Amino acid sequence: MTPAATVLPLDDIRALVETLPGPDTDAIAAVRARDAQLTKPPGSLGRMEELVEWLAAWQANPRPDVRRPLVAVFATNHGVAERGVSAFPQDVTRQMVENFAAGGAAINQFCIAHDLGLKVFELALDLPTPDIAEADAFDEAACAATIAYGMEAVAGGIDLLCLGEMGIANTTIAAAIYNALFGGAPEDWVGRGTGIDDEGIKRKTDAVRLAVDRLDGERDALEVLRRIGGREIAAMTGAILAARMEHVPVIIDGFVATAAAAVVYALAPDAIAHCLFAHRSAETAHDKALNVMGQKPLLDLGLRLGEGTGAALAAGLVRVAARTHAGMATFAEAGIAGKSES
Amino acid sequence: MTPAATVLPLDDIRALVETLPGPDTDAIAAVRARDAQLTKPPGSLGRMEELVEWLAAWQANPRPDVRRPLVAVFATNHGVAERGVSAFPQDVTRQMVENFAAGGAAINQFCIAHDLGLKVFELALDLPTPDIAEADAFDEAACAATIAYGMEAVAGGIDLLCLGEMGIANTTIAAAIYNALFGGAPEDWVGRGTGIDDEGIKRKTDAVRLAVDRLDGERDALEVLRRIGGREIAAMTGAILAARMEHVPVIIDGFVATAAAAVVYALAPDAIAHCLFAHRSAETAHDKALNVMGQKPLLDLGLRLGEGTGAALAAGLVRVAARTHAGMATFAEAGIAGKSES
Repeated sequence: MTPAATVLPLDDIRALVETLPGPDTDAIAAVRARDAQLTKPPGSLGRMEELVEWLAAWQANPRPDVRRPLVAVFATNHGVAERGVSAFPQDVTRQMVENFAAGGAAINQFCIAHDLGLKVFELALDLPTPDIAEADAFDEAACAATIAYGMEAVAGGIDLLCLGEMGIANTTIAAAIYNALFGGAPEDWVGRGTGIDDEGIKRKTDAVRLAVDRLDGERDALEVLRRIGGREIAAMTGAILAARMEHVPVIIDGFVATAAAAVVYALAPDAIAHCLFAHRSAETAHDKALNVMGQKPLLDLGLRLGEGTGAALAAGLVRVAARTHAGMATFAEAGIAGKSES
Repeated sequence: MTPAATVLPLDDIRALVETLPGPDTDAIAAVRARDAQLTKPPGSLGRMEELVEWLAAWQANPRPDVRRPLVAVFATNHGVAERGVSAFPQDVTRQMVENFAAGGAAINQFCIAHDLGLKVFELALDLPTPDIAEADAFDEAACAATIAYGMEAVAGGIDLLCLGEMGIANTTIAAAIYNALFGGAPEDWVGRGTGIDDEGIKRKTDAVRLAVDRLDGERDALEVLRRIGGREIAAMTGAILAARMEHVPVIIDGFVATAAAAVVYALAPDAIAHCLFAHRSAETAHDKALNVMGQKPLLDLGLRLGEGTGAALAAGLVRVAARTHAGMATFAEAGIAGKSES
């Protein structure tokens, strides 16, 4: 299957969600059976053991491994930036894309450290989506095309996909998506992003309020995505769905990447079952979004950079977990006495 | 300095604590100055930034790195195991030491994954310390000698030391140390360790109560260590102090390794300032011990294995943090606009 070859209308994407494969229960059973024989007390590696089961379930592989991991960073611009909702000017999106290409960004270093592939997907940097306080981000065809573009991240035989992003003002977009999908007030979802001051918070909150008011109660996930944007969130939505179809587990980075997962969750809660949430962002509303979706993030390191940095760290742990499961001796191999009767 | 060349009497160890070097404030300032120029919003890497400062402070190095990390695993046996306080028989300590040597344990895989050195220090496996419910673990000379032995872990030019342990029944020993040093009831500090049942918990709690009652209110940290043990905790106590003298930052693993840090903390709270607490163990009282010492662990993965496994994962993050700090481009190098005025 080459999911990106055809641009599906949004209704076909809704239909696709009904056909997503479930977890491979045989692979999970195989991992559990081996884990029970490894030279450690049962359960003593905690979430590291859960990571192996998760990887097996969604790679559909009883001997899961991470051989071709990819960090996909989706970069784009947003008209709402003109409202002064970010601490940085919009030009920084392109400058940071150039920094990724030159190897100078944090995500480059994280990928080197954990031997992860890195691809940056540029999405019309010079053509920001309209200001969401006033107009829809996409028409239906453009939204569907962007989702399809994101599906292309799942290619080349990758076996683990980390989703990250770069886009000045995109925490405003993400806050509007959460507000539209999960309710509450704009204030519940707006934070300081890259570091705006109190006046900026006010402008950002106003922008989210105007955008959500404009939706007039629309709760359909793909309509919310179409009307709020942005391109990186639509692309990550496509990537999440394509990965599920292709048996590629997904690691979601922070506040903005989680907004794409929120769109998929709103389509069908089970449709994000193959997604691991890498970390709890320092962007305060991230925790709230994770709670709504019942997700417990793997790490809590006060990160709020984006770029896929938290996902890259989580990918490192997933690989250690898989290699440990594969490489440890069993009690029988090591000639070790089992648990005593007491 | 070769700290292990001489066995210091316990009073000299008390005196040594008064002479420990402080953090290198110039190195911290250098790291902060560089961090402010890196192509990311200030503070956006959260605890990863703090790790770099911590490494600089205690390596006394303005360009900190992790080139020769070591996981030191101290293994020994405890007479109290005869009371049925562990889910595993005492023979397992030696069997696991053999498993470490053969490369079959979880810590072997973690060290391979993160390219960490691994040394296992055997401490008289065939001569368990006396049952602490009835007798002191050491006389003063033996306690001092074991502390000195642990100091030998800081050798060979290592630049980061991870402390781990293996010893059937040693969560009983650690619980007794916490109870003696930090107060409360035995029940506050006793947990399931490798997985004992309710009857085992009762036996374990009784053992801790008898041991602490025997101390008759003794609160001197080194006396508590001498009378409760065990050899691995005494050795890790020495390793923590020697590392501070030698400008080697220390990563403390879980419930048992933290008991060694508790001994050092009880000698002088500042004497553990160079220690990073790797993770919050699933052994429930670990969180309580960390709270008493005002420590926020880096990871929370439900680990309860010991062997230094949590410390090894933390070491991986520390290295990523250092390399990211060193390798990222500055705003000037990348030609990126700084924060806007708004």
